[in-house]
Amino acid sequence: MFKIEKKDKNTEARTGIFETAHGPVKTPVFMPVGTKGTVKAIRPEDLYSFGSNIILGNLYHLYLQPGIDIIEAAGGIHSFMNWGKSILTDSGGFQVFSLGKIRKIIDEGVQFKSIIDGSVHLFTPENVVKMQSRMGSDIAMVLDECIPFNQDYDYTKDAALRTIKWAELSLIERKAGDIRSDMKIFGIIQGGFIKDLRSYSAEVISGMDFDGTAIGGLSVGEERGRTFEMLDHTIQNVDRRKPLYFMGLGDPVGILEAIGSGIDMFDCVMPTRISRNGSAFTPLGRINLKNKKYTRDFEPIDKTCDCYACRNYSAAYLKHLIKSREIFASMLLTIHNLNFIFKLVDASRDAIAAGNFKQFKKDFLNNYKIKGV
Amino acid sequence: MFKIEKKDKNTEARTGIFETAHGPVKTPVFMPVGTKGTVKAIRPEDLYSFGSNIILGNLYHLYLQPGIDIIEAAGGIHSFMNWGKSILTDSGGFQVFSLGKIRKIIDEGVQFKSIIDGSVHLFTPENVVKMQSRMGSDIAMVLDECIPFNQDYDYTKDAALRTIKWAELSLIERKAGDIRSDMKIFGIIQGGFIKDLRSYSAEVISGMDFDGTAIGGLSVGEERGRTFEMLDHTIQNVDRRKPLYFMGLGDPVGILEAIGSGIDMFDCVMPTRISRNGSAFTPLGRINLKNKKYTRDFEPIDKTCDCYACRNYSAAYLKHLIKSREIFASMLLTIHNLNFIFKLVDASRDAIAAGNFKQFKKDFLNNYKIKGV
Repeated sequence: MFKIEKKDKNTEARTGIFETAHGPVKTPVFMPVGTKGTVKAIRPEDLYSFGSNIILGNLYHLYLQPGIDIIEAAGGIHSFMNWGKSILTDSGGFQVFSLGKIRKIIDEGVQFKSIIDGSVHLFTPENVVKMQSRMGSDIAMVLDECIPFNQDYDYTKDAALRTIKWAELSLIERKAGDIRSDMKIFGIIQGGFIKDLRSYSAEVISGMDFDGTAIGGLSVGEERGRTFEMLDHTIQNVDRRKPLYFMGLGDPVGILEAIGSGIDMFDCVMPTRISRNGSAFTPLGRINLKNKKYTRDFEPIDKTCDCYACRNYSAAYLKHLIKSREIFASMLLTIHNLNFIFKLVDASRDAIAAGNFKQFKKDFLNNYKIKGV
Repeated sequence: MFKIEKKDKNTEARTGIFETAHGPVKTPVFMPVGTKGTVKAIRPEDLYSFGSNIILGNLYHLYLQPGIDIIEAAGGIHSFMNWGKSILTDSGGFQVFSLGKIRKIIDEGVQFKSIIDGSVHLFTPENVVKMQSRMGSDIAMVLDECIPFNQDYDYTKDAALRTIKWAELSLIERKAGDIRSDMKIFGIIQGGFIKDLRSYSAEVISGMDFDGTAIGGLSVGEERGRTFEMLDHTIQNVDRRKPLYFMGLGDPVGILEAIGSGIDMFDCVMPTRISRNGSAFTPLGRINLKNKKYTRDFEPIDKTCDCYACRNYSAAYLKHLIKSREIFASMLLTIHNLNFIFKLVDASRDAIAAGNFKQFKKDFLNNYKIKGV
């Protein structure tokens, strides 16, 4: 499934390509999040224009609304949402475990109440794979138990072992059940912030018969130093021949760090969410357009940017739209911020291919203020 | 300014063309409303694709946010909002008079408190023309007093006479003040629902040195029969050589009635507003996509429609987006509903040119259920 094309000499970074039922995907790759069957406030054609070949969907949300039956009857998720390229679906484990009191772990899986109507539902390792197959997903994620930051050893171990057991059940379901043969399945490494549990999970999960390996349970509220310490530790124990996916990471600095650590795939709601809150990425750092200094700034938010928003609109206009709570503000900033992330990842890929990723990363970080401009 | 091209034999309908500093506009014409410097949830390029050559802006809203100074410093409203074709700006009279207790009519004009910060402002016949000129408007509207439905004779008369007096002051300002010579100015007929006040206002306003005549104070909550009774009465008393603009009308049935009565221009927030509430125009009537029957309707909302939304998405998908409160629902329905209105007006223009508008209107109304499908 995955072909590594170029390895960086100075870091763990690499370029590669993998193939799904909906075409090739070059790595490293950022996957925009389309939780409910739409990447918020943007058209597919705009995503294609950035070179976006894979987006995320979320089983948990789509299961509750509109329901898997509807998506299946529509001819699958691609047809339903008019997306012609690859779709990776998250199993919903992360969402279900975030529900707190209204979910309960039982032997078979996790039981939860619908936030829409209070009805009771059960996700199992088997049925989440099956439902992702029925939806038409290109890459399915297994059901995992994602725990909050800094839990104790016993709880962290229980969750990691349960995730491994569920991973095994997912693979049995793939062999025995009625699962589409053209759907890839990725296992998920857990183990919290405890190194031996991380190493063990990494070895076991990445050694299983999955098409790719995901790293879950990081970027859950910890300091950035901890994130990358655990990431580097985890990566030492995975099968590096498979694509490696860091779940829930998507800020510019984090992306460069993760690529340097050997990550091939990442996703995050952040670039689209900050767009709806009036923030924008620039080469100098993230800016908040609500700031008074943009009131009379008739230049584009980023003079080096070639996106639709920067070609046509000023910072002052965007600020006005945000203050007026206009939908068009979200539309324009979503285009700008996703375009920024895609250009950054494209440039990283080029730098790896050219053998100068380390310098590229250093130059970017020299200009980019992490705390915002 | 205005050239009438073809008059219908059976109705008052006509086709024509007028020219502004930003190019020609064919009439009859629907003007999408871009109150705060953006037609909500749609890009200019999509409006161009429907053949939209003129949109509305609103002085009252733009004066409060971002302020006329900012728009002027941006190089004018066209440059600020990246709209290359004509812009008609409403004076804000309608909005100010809707403010109720926080506005007061004084000799010079109307005083009001900002809904943003409570500060006190004064709109006069002179300064609204001047501010529209500074903004770069192609067609400015005079300050008028728009009263609620069914007021008594004395109040209605006072408002109509004040509107006439203000109209005169606007024209004096045009001659004496620092007003752009390439900006057109339209007078506004008031007179409530009292026929002799309507006739008088119509004669006086349309006889004054304005570039066009607007009919205000209708479509303010009355029954449709009353609207068109007053419209037909008013039209008998206007100078028919000038373009005639019905303010605040934009539903499909109303548009056809108004065109048949001789109206050349109309605007309304309705087509864009219903788009954000999950409703869509179809040839059979208006539909509400929240309705259960669309849950499994995998056809486009209008099979005869060639818009971006109907070419690519099903009613079921739109229903899902609306239930999920996704911005993309508003984006898609705004495209569909504006496209519907533009096609209807284009077809009306063609029918007038071909001499069969009456039959065209009859055929449309035979299919279109006013109360919705």
